[in-house]
Amino acid sequence: MPPFGFLHMRVWASLFGQLLRSPRAVCIREVHFHSQGTRDISPQQMVVREKILDMVVGCFKRHGAKRLDTPAFELKEMLTEKYGEDSGLIYDLKDQGGELLSLRYDLTVPFARYLAMNKVKKMKRYHVGKVWRRESPTIVQGRYREFCQCDFDIAGQFDPMIPDAECLKIMCEILSGLQLGDFIIKVNDRRVLDGMFAVCGVPESKFHAICSSIDKLDKISWKDVRHEMVAKKGLAPEVADRIGDYVQCHGGVSLIEQMFQDPRLSQNKQALDGLGDLKLLFEYLTLFGIAEKISFDLSLARGLDYYTGVIYEAVLLQTPAQAQESFNVGSVAAGGRYDKLVGMFDPKGHKVPCVGLSIGVERIFSIVEQRMKTFGQKIRTTETQVFVATPQKNFLHERLKLIAELWDAGIKAELLYKNNPKLLTQLHYCEDMGIPLVVIIGEQEMKEGIIKLRSVASREEVAIKRENLVAEIQKRLSES
Amino acid sequence: MPPFGFLHMRVWASLFGQLLRSPRAVCIREVHFHSQGTRDISPQQMVVREKILDMVVGCFKRHGAKRLDTPAFELKEMLTEKYGEDSGLIYDLKDQGGELLSLRYDLTVPFARYLAMNKVKKMKRYHVGKVWRRESPTIVQGRYREFCQCDFDIAGQFDPMIPDAECLKIMCEILSGLQLGDFIIKVNDRRVLDGMFAVCGVPESKFHAICSSIDKLDKISWKDVRHEMVAKKGLAPEVADRIGDYVQCHGGVSLIEQMFQDPRLSQNKQALDGLGDLKLLFEYLTLFGIAEKISFDLSLARGLDYYTGVIYEAVLLQTPAQAQESFNVGSVAAGGRYDKLVGMFDPKGHKVPCVGLSIGVERIFSIVEQRMKTFGQKIRTTETQVFVATPQKNFLHERLKLIAELWDAGIKAELLYKNNPKLLTQLHYCEDMGIPLVVIIGEQEMKEGIIKLRSVASREEVAIKRENLVAEIQKRLSES
Repeated sequence: MPPFGFLHMRVWASLFGQLLRSPRAVCIREVHFHSQGTRDISPQQMVVREKILDMVVGCFKRHGAKRLDTPAFELKEMLTEKYGEDSGLIYDLKDQGGELLSLRYDLTVPFARYLAMNKVKKMKRYHVGKVWRRESPTIVQGRYREFCQCDFDIAGQFDPMIPDAECLKIMCEILSGLQLGDFIIKVNDRRVLDGMFAVCGVPESKFHAICSSIDKLDKISWKDVRHEMVAKKGLAPEVADRIGDYVQCHGGVSLIEQMFQDPRLSQNKQALDGLGDLKLLFEYLTLFGIAEKISFDLSLARGLDYYTGVIYEAVLLQTPAQAQESFNVGSVAAGGRYDKLVGMFDPKGHKVPCVGLSIGVERIFSIVEQRMKTFGQKIRTTETQVFVATPQKNFLHERLKLIAELWDAGIKAELLYKNNPKLLTQLHYCEDMGIPLVVIIGEQEMKEGIIKLRSVASREEVAIKRENLVAEIQKRLSES
Repeated sequence: MPPFGFLHMRVWASLFGQLLRSPRAVCIREVHFHSQGTRDISPQQMVVREKILDMVVGCFKRHGAKRLDTPAFELKEMLTEKYGEDSGLIYDLKDQGGELLSLRYDLTVPFARYLAMNKVKKMKRYHVGKVWRRESPTIVQGRYREFCQCDFDIAGQFDPMIPDAECLKIMCEILSGLQLGDFIIKVNDRRVLDGMFAVCGVPESKFHAICSSIDKLDKISWKDVRHEMVAKKGLAPEVADRIGDYVQCHGGVSLIEQMFQDPRLSQNKQALDGLGDLKLLFEYLTLFGIAEKISFDLSLARGLDYYTGVIYEAVLLQTPAQAQESFNVGSVAAGGRYDKLVGMFDPKGHKVPCVGLSIGVERIFSIVEQRMKTFGQKIRTTETQVFVATPQKNFLHERLKLIAELWDAGIKAELLYKNNPKLLTQLHYCEDMGIPLVVIIGEQEMKEGIIKLRSVASREEVAIKRENLVAEIQKRLSES
């Protein structure tokens, strides 16, 4: 792994450095959870989110992506038969006349619809937006019925595995940059899975259903998955056991070589295609310096129907102490190749191969919020640089003239909306809000044509000529 | 009006400066309009939007606002009886079990609901987000069924008119900063309107309905409004005519004085309260240096039910030539005081007075897009700084190693996803996308331990030691 030192330092220092502040600042406060499974995002949470999203979007831009936006709702028919067992989680709009509409379930299907509709054959785009799913909300894991997704996708016919490798590189850059702790990216290929199902004796009609069961292996045990496959999905027990042997395997390039030699798998064309691409992928990942972050894992399935080739999922690893309890704390990024989805939206079925990734930012928001809470870290929710105060009564007019001058010079400034506030109240407000500078105007200052400039931290005050005020403030702010 | 020179130059130069580029760049392209009244936002449009939103949000932050986010949908009951005649435009979600939900119609009602739910008594917040309305979409005016709103609001019990004046100052800063042309902000007060209705003889039960009719005066003629009031809403013709005399009046402070003397209006307590506040407001607007941008206009009504005091609406003025045809090109920002809305959400009816504004960013996006199209201005949709190219075959591995080095150093870089692309194809791509620098690696360079760095604009090439590449690129980028 090449050192991400430069990125780390800058990003993390900016994230935590700017957020943190000393006295009496506001902790992240939980807002009310709504009965409908959604929630408001408080200003404290918004600050954390914005910093994380800036970092994620910065990475997408570093890789040359354009930004796209699509509507919150799509024609209902656009979303059907794309999400496998999860289709029941789609929110529909009420029929109030006109087309039947549904809220988008992810950002991938709208992207594919966009490409087909506009006959775009090649595009590298990112999309940050909300999606909606009617899940039973489990707040602990950071799952709500409305949540933010950050997607990066590369559409177009290219030489194999080059865009796929870039997607994995992006996931590594983002997860390293955010310093969430050690992580690993599991990689598999839908063709290897299908090949595995075939050689184990799964009837082709059950591939999707069995794939959905395998996808649950990071949440429930093999025993429970096996039970679901046999009892609920009608798989023969010996077929399930054969699958069980494979899905225990994970490793690096050597496991790919081993699977090439596997007596059953090596007889399956699909599996061999997938293994070939995975081998090439690892070659590129080595050049990118990230191969040791990647694990070829035969238990990785990914629930969505639309994947056709390489699939991947990043999980955070716990410290050795935590690891004794359970292996991972869940997926924080995932994606894969979907070469047939665009064709489903094109009247003539023209295909545009695609590969992409989605960053699980909601999970990441929760982790960072939790960490800040644990360490009692405080957050500034405004960026105000200067507060305009007075120690005297009847100085509203002077304060208003003065603050307008600051605003017009681009300086972030506030005052209290009172005719005659007490000086102590004004200074306390600055301490509460973490405002670094106070401009003080009163009778004495008016007479002398000066202004007092006070540092909230040091409580030092200096007198400045009224006409030099803006320049002096700009100088101080540029130094800090 | 104080000079916004500093703001102008920076913002506009950054908006148009960064967007513009010379050769073969992409024009703003209209994307398909969907039958459901929504649309995709293309990368070209996203670039324009982001620059404008950055400017708007920058202004909100300059005034000390925190950012808040609320869900796309609310409980249906939260939205009822808030929007007057427009309530029929609310999108409902299908009843799939659980609560009845509706998509939010604006950002004001969710803000009020948030304040009441969290018992927040004081807050200055901004919110940028989508809202949804089932209107017949009129694309020309930039009206879609899904659109973006940018709201700034001040909640809390303060001395009169200080926050209200700040809201108007913010509208002026944003409209001046965006250089959309000359504008004026119409101001009125709901209490003046109600007083006017009362002294003209409108029955109190018809205040809201008549207010809605008056609100249409910027779209349809007085004759048509009068007809609606008399024929559809059952107003006596002489009452309508009395209203007609008032709604022709607009002017500055002197009109406020004149209305104080008006024999009928001066008998009405409500009207006098409103006029008193308007007088104070103008005092503060003068101190802010923006009084000449404001027009007291008795025809301004604002359609929404929830306003209780001062209301305002900014309209762009056309050039003298354009003005011969029609006076304004429509509202680009609006808002007002709503002191009772929060109380409607509080179980005990506790009130939190509020005042706020909404920037009509969709209208502004259309104007800027239209202007850029008219002037044939081109837009860069990516920020890529460096392209990694090779003139030889079999150099994919070297290109991948090299680009990873650039990414890890935080440099925005791209390459073509081909094993053996032609050099000309690679250089054309840079010109098409406006990428300023190309790094070229080939056999000769490998042998000599160098890299060629090419400027796309000047076509000059210099040889650089391989190990100095990142530093040299960073130097060039910091200079440009």
